[in-house]
Amino acid sequence: MTEIPYSGIREIFSECNRLERNGEDIVHLEIGRPDFDTPSPIKQAAKSAIDEGHVHYTSNYGIQPLRDRISAKFETDSGISYDPEDEIIVTAGASEAVFVSIMSMVDPGTEVLIPDPCWTYAPTVRAAGGTPVRYPLDPESGFQPNIEVLDSLINDDTSLLILNSPHNPTGSVIDDDHLRAVRDLVVENDLIAVSDEIYEKIIYGGAKHRSLASLDGMYERTITINGVSKAYSMTGWRVGYLGAPKALADEILRMRQYTTTCAPSISQYAALRALEGDLFEPLVEAFADRRALVCERIEDVPGMTAPTPEGAIYVYPTVPEPSTDGREFVWSLLHDTGVALVPGDVFGSNSSRVRIAYSNSLDRINTAFDRIEAWVENQ
Amino acid sequence: MTEIPYSGIREIFSECNRLERNGEDIVHLEIGRPDFDTPSPIKQAAKSAIDEGHVHYTSNYGIQPLRDRISAKFETDSGISYDPEDEIIVTAGASEAVFVSIMSMVDPGTEVLIPDPCWTYAPTVRAAGGTPVRYPLDPESGFQPNIEVLDSLINDDTSLLILNSPHNPTGSVIDDDHLRAVRDLVVENDLIAVSDEIYEKIIYGGAKHRSLASLDGMYERTITINGVSKAYSMTGWRVGYLGAPKALADEILRMRQYTTTCAPSISQYAALRALEGDLFEPLVEAFADRRALVCERIEDVPGMTAPTPEGAIYVYPTVPEPSTDGREFVWSLLHDTGVALVPGDVFGSNSSRVRIAYSNSLDRINTAFDRIEAWVENQ
Repeated sequence: MTEIPYSGIREIFSECNRLERNGEDIVHLEIGRPDFDTPSPIKQAAKSAIDEGHVHYTSNYGIQPLRDRISAKFETDSGISYDPEDEIIVTAGASEAVFVSIMSMVDPGTEVLIPDPCWTYAPTVRAAGGTPVRYPLDPESGFQPNIEVLDSLINDDTSLLILNSPHNPTGSVIDDDHLRAVRDLVVENDLIAVSDEIYEKIIYGGAKHRSLASLDGMYERTITINGVSKAYSMTGWRVGYLGAPKALADEILRMRQYTTTCAPSISQYAALRALEGDLFEPLVEAFADRRALVCERIEDVPGMTAPTPEGAIYVYPTVPEPSTDGREFVWSLLHDTGVALVPGDVFGSNSSRVRIAYSNSLDRINTAFDRIEAWVENQ
Repeated sequence: MTEIPYSGIREIFSECNRLERNGEDIVHLEIGRPDFDTPSPIKQAAKSAIDEGHVHYTSNYGIQPLRDRISAKFETDSGISYDPEDEIIVTAGASEAVFVSIMSMVDPGTEVLIPDPCWTYAPTVRAAGGTPVRYPLDPESGFQPNIEVLDSLINDDTSLLILNSPHNPTGSVIDDDHLRAVRDLVVENDLIAVSDEIYEKIIYGGAKHRSLASLDGMYERTITINGVSKAYSMTGWRVGYLGAPKALADEILRMRQYTTTCAPSISQYAALRALEGDLFEPLVEAFADRRALVCERIEDVPGMTAPTPEGAIYVYPTVPEPSTDGREFVWSLLHDTGVALVPGDVFGSNSSRVRIAYSNSLDRINTAFDRIEAWVENQ
């Protein structure tokens, strides 16, 4: 299967590693990874699990207390009722939840609607034998889906629609009107939806997160994906999860038996502790401060402009003058100044934007923008 | 992809759960899972990793010190030189290593040679769009591959051969003559080989494990899979790994980026400690005692017979008189006596054998055989 590409983010990351080995000071704004330590009650829960000998395979679905907790969370936060017995599957990170959902739902030869831009759903769609078809998010509307174009892309071969909100890489949060419009198209055309809600808890100002599956007619045709990686700074623990009606969850579990058998047992106990309390708030406050700083600094860079992100940990601005191409800008900036961003075309068709991940300290964000401003002046 | 079946082992396991909830006493000989606690130096290393904040994504390949250690291990134990930079990939369990190897090496429409019987490689081959073709292991030779038949099964569509030694479910260890014969066929027919060596360290008596990739001409065409789950009683930690020449490792990494991103970070530090010392020996001694007991007890059951296993934690006997069908025997035995085994046809075409996993205490093994003997007498 030689058509699977290297992740474009990986390419930047490898170059950063090479430069750092040569002694260069790199400001990392390329990786969507909360940089905080995991909150200590979660770490303590993991240590207790180690002491108690929770070191063996768990059920393919995950440990029952975690599934119970996830079920309660879906009920409270989203108003969706998933049966903890057979409608929730714990995975090795949300990425595995996305992978097994696509692999088990996509029949070879069918088309899968994915946002333009978006995270790397396309390679998995291709691995499953499907064709990714991109529906545009409009910068003019703060990166809401263009419903008219989306409608025009649906045909008899369309099997699945992927939605991601809060959104990577734009930071947009889908509003109620657009969510309902997406729902209408999915129901009318008898599609399955995958709703990737991994950034649910990282949301700012007045924005509200609403789960696609909570809308009328959507529970029975939606796979809802979430996890603890982003909200609790637990990317290394590898715990994600999905909720789906039993008919879909059965199919996904069949695939999931053969990918990793089960999520790491100790990490599952850590995730259980994470979901028991509101540990995410200090993290979100820190991200809110960073978002404010990044937006403020972007305003001062000639030609750089972006809708204010309402969620997630990314902003997706146009490239500064006199640049026109995101890829050229990113590589020049990295080699000239050591600031690492990701070119927009890694995420879709737009080559005149870049993704800035503000998962770094206020100090480092300031350093990055000082360097960007100096770079722009030198052009 | 509705053709992916539920694992046959899962079916038994679910029924055990149901019976246990009804208060029945089940003797578990159905799951290949060392039942010991993880050795305490490994647990300590995991706790230190938690304290030190190793809670973030690692490289897709895995942390560098673990890859260095795995590379040294391959050199010392197998005489294979894999570059720790780009020829070793750490995965979420050996099952993920098997999954990504098959997914990235099998082109749709090609045939993949897998042993009969064997672990669940077939569903993944089918998910990749390939056709599994089974080559027989002969009970008469202690379950060595039948080279003549294997040769006759290779054609222009054959792309990959999977070898597993020490072997699940038979406990056989491939001898040098058969290993060389397999090598000759793979080289002559320009195939790729996946060598699943997860039970490498669990080996008895005079048997010797030899890696397929260490034979002349095989390094460049072999993916060697191993992990810490079985040898160090770490099934829940989810750390496996593979070694492959750069050209193949590059392909596999492309797929691996999209399955789980990386193996759990804390578990990787635990695995590093596991591979630093000879912690597996007490486990192997305990398994050797269990193997001796199981073989002794099998001899006393009329009609039950099996080659003495030389490795792994399984024996694969014929069903006792008057049974002739493994599936009927297993389900009757489970419902009548609470002893859980796995029918042979879960692993391949043989329906007159069963798998016994001796990953349980000597006491419980005795209880199981007391019940089996009483069951046979009552027929």
